[in-house]
Amino acid sequence: MAHPDVFEILKSKSGLVQKALDAYLPARGSSEMAELNSFYEMLWDYNLRGGKRLRPALCLLTCEMFGGKQERALPSAVAFELMHNFLLIHDDFEDGSELRRGAPCLHRIHGAPAAINAGDGLFAKTWQALLANRRLIGAGRALKVFDEFARQCDYTVQGQAIELGWVASNKWDVEEKDYYKLVELKTAHYTTTTPMRVGAICGGAPMKEANAIDKFGLLFGTAFQIQDDVLNLAGSEKEMGKEVGGDIHEGKRTLALLHAYRKARGKEKQELVEIMAKPRERKTPEEVTRVLEIMNSLGSVEYAKKKALERAAEAKKVFEKKFSHIKDSEAKQSVEAIIDYVVERKY
Amino acid sequence: MAHPDVFEILKSKSGLVQKALDAYLPARGSSEMAELNSFYEMLWDYNLRGGKRLRPALCLLTCEMFGGKQERALPSAVAFELMHNFLLIHDDFEDGSELRRGAPCLHRIHGAPAAINAGDGLFAKTWQALLANRRLIGAGRALKVFDEFARQCDYTVQGQAIELGWVASNKWDVEEKDYYKLVELKTAHYTTTTPMRVGAICGGAPMKEANAIDKFGLLFGTAFQIQDDVLNLAGSEKEMGKEVGGDIHEGKRTLALLHAYRKARGKEKQELVEIMAKPRERKTPEEVTRVLEIMNSLGSVEYAKKKALERAAEAKKVFEKKFSHIKDSEAKQSVEAIIDYVVERKY
Repeated sequence: MAHPDVFEILKSKSGLVQKALDAYLPARGSSEMAELNSFYEMLWDYNLRGGKRLRPALCLLTCEMFGGKQERALPSAVAFELMHNFLLIHDDFEDGSELRRGAPCLHRIHGAPAAINAGDGLFAKTWQALLANRRLIGAGRALKVFDEFARQCDYTVQGQAIELGWVASNKWDVEEKDYYKLVELKTAHYTTTTPMRVGAICGGAPMKEANAIDKFGLLFGTAFQIQDDVLNLAGSEKEMGKEVGGDIHEGKRTLALLHAYRKARGKEKQELVEIMAKPRERKTPEEVTRVLEIMNSLGSVEYAKKKALERAAEAKKVFEKKFSHIKDSEAKQSVEAIIDYVVERKY
Repeated sequence: MAHPDVFEILKSKSGLVQKALDAYLPARGSSEMAELNSFYEMLWDYNLRGGKRLRPALCLLTCEMFGGKQERALPSAVAFELMHNFLLIHDDFEDGSELRRGAPCLHRIHGAPAAINAGDGLFAKTWQALLANRRLIGAGRALKVFDEFARQCDYTVQGQAIELGWVASNKWDVEEKDYYKLVELKTAHYTTTTPMRVGAICGGAPMKEANAIDKFGLLFGTAFQIQDDVLNLAGSEKEMGKEVGGDIHEGKRTLALLHAYRKARGKEKQELVEIMAKPRERKTPEEVTRVLEIMNSLGSVEYAKKKALERAAEAKKVFEKKFSHIKDSEAKQSVEAIIDYVVERKY
């Protein structure tokens, strides 16, 4: 592990966010109505399962990097986590996923109607958390943060629409450039670019510093998503908290799978096409394993890994160049350490 | 018809909102990607089906009533319509509904995953529409409007959680006070109270005028929902654009049905309990008709109608008292006319 301190950084920021969450979610068991208490449990559930809390950490660190106290970014950091959990609940249902953070997805426990509604509840709470910015950073900046959240939400949903569209129409002749467009929309904005832009805004940086994050953030966010896909193919269920090969099951277009589609020939190609054309519920575990085998034999997983590393390295270069004028600090070093971590992580 | 002009008022406000929508939703067919164009169609769909547009009308009229030009409330009025359509898409799925505004519900056309995602897309657009307030009414008031939207969303989702909980646990011993609590949370805030509070804020009224709307708005909104339930039982599918008795099918706890539960005896009671205990897909059309018959024989629909009228009359009294100091205007008269309309309407 090149940067063991990353775990300490994430742990410390995560602790802060966990503590602050109490102010933004209703206390468990606090209603007189059983139905509302059950709803509160759903709002808390994914939060209590943990997760890396990468987004809030990036938000808090960027605020500090620009000279702001991290407390100025805390409601926004909490809002990123609430929004992330809202998106996970809806995406898990939309993708037909089984496991999330080591336990069944929310819709598999409470049914889809209640889970979708709980996701909407977290969206309302995201919005409410951001209202605390008014007193903390002033009305003008508070509105800028709203703007950032609205835009990232718009992008993320567009990305999900593209992915759902590809799955529904069984489209496999996806070009790499369209894959990258998908990943930027669906992941990069809300995972790296926007948390860091908002951190800069909360930290009092001028908008040109926030804008300077974009190119770096999209590279970094794309590296993150490719590595996420690689782990889904090659990680361990225990460490990830979700099923290995789940993306194959769900029919997701990942960089590795698109590579395999391009490279496969003859009987292998035919097998790949036939298995991937089946809807989720008709793919057997043996078929998922067979797709994994084909991908490994074609070097597809290695290919994706390489692309993630390339992008992370480029992200780091862009970061160093764009922010060379920002004085060195623990926060700045931590952001750089997180870039390395993103492609070295095991879950 | 006591107030034929209500249709003209709603039509004129609806036209304004329809025109303004173009600025907040992506143009249909404007993307290079087929998947995004299909997503844009889903964002537009419920909007293009029409609807009464009661919420934007109340928002615009209240702005005018407090002396503001309605243009100051236009982005908020659009946001109410976007938010309403987002909630309808999700609720239609969660309730297992069939028809909306005369056509199949969005999830029945595109499947639940794409429809839920389109609902989230409209939520992002709601948020973006509200950002236009910054230049129009200033940062301070723009944040107040965000606050109102966040709160109404939180309430609405809580109300939906209660209703879904009752359906899931087959709870029928619901007291009338809990029914009213549900209706205030689920309907009244986002249908009447908040649109009018936001109208007042956009119109430049002090917050104490906005707060004075609450009591009136909850009575008015409750009358609206009871009448909505009555129409669902006694209206015509053609006028409503949804199936008659759909609430019985979906197992909704309405005032009329709760009345029937209290009043039914012997064999009738047993029939009612048995039919309503069945999940949606196992209720036959004959059983739904039988429940309607029992309700009519017990005077349950008349009972609900009476309660709606009582609340509307009380709402009107409260309105006249609280806003006697606001000078008479076409806008003020229109709001009063809408109160009458709400319980006299046929769809």
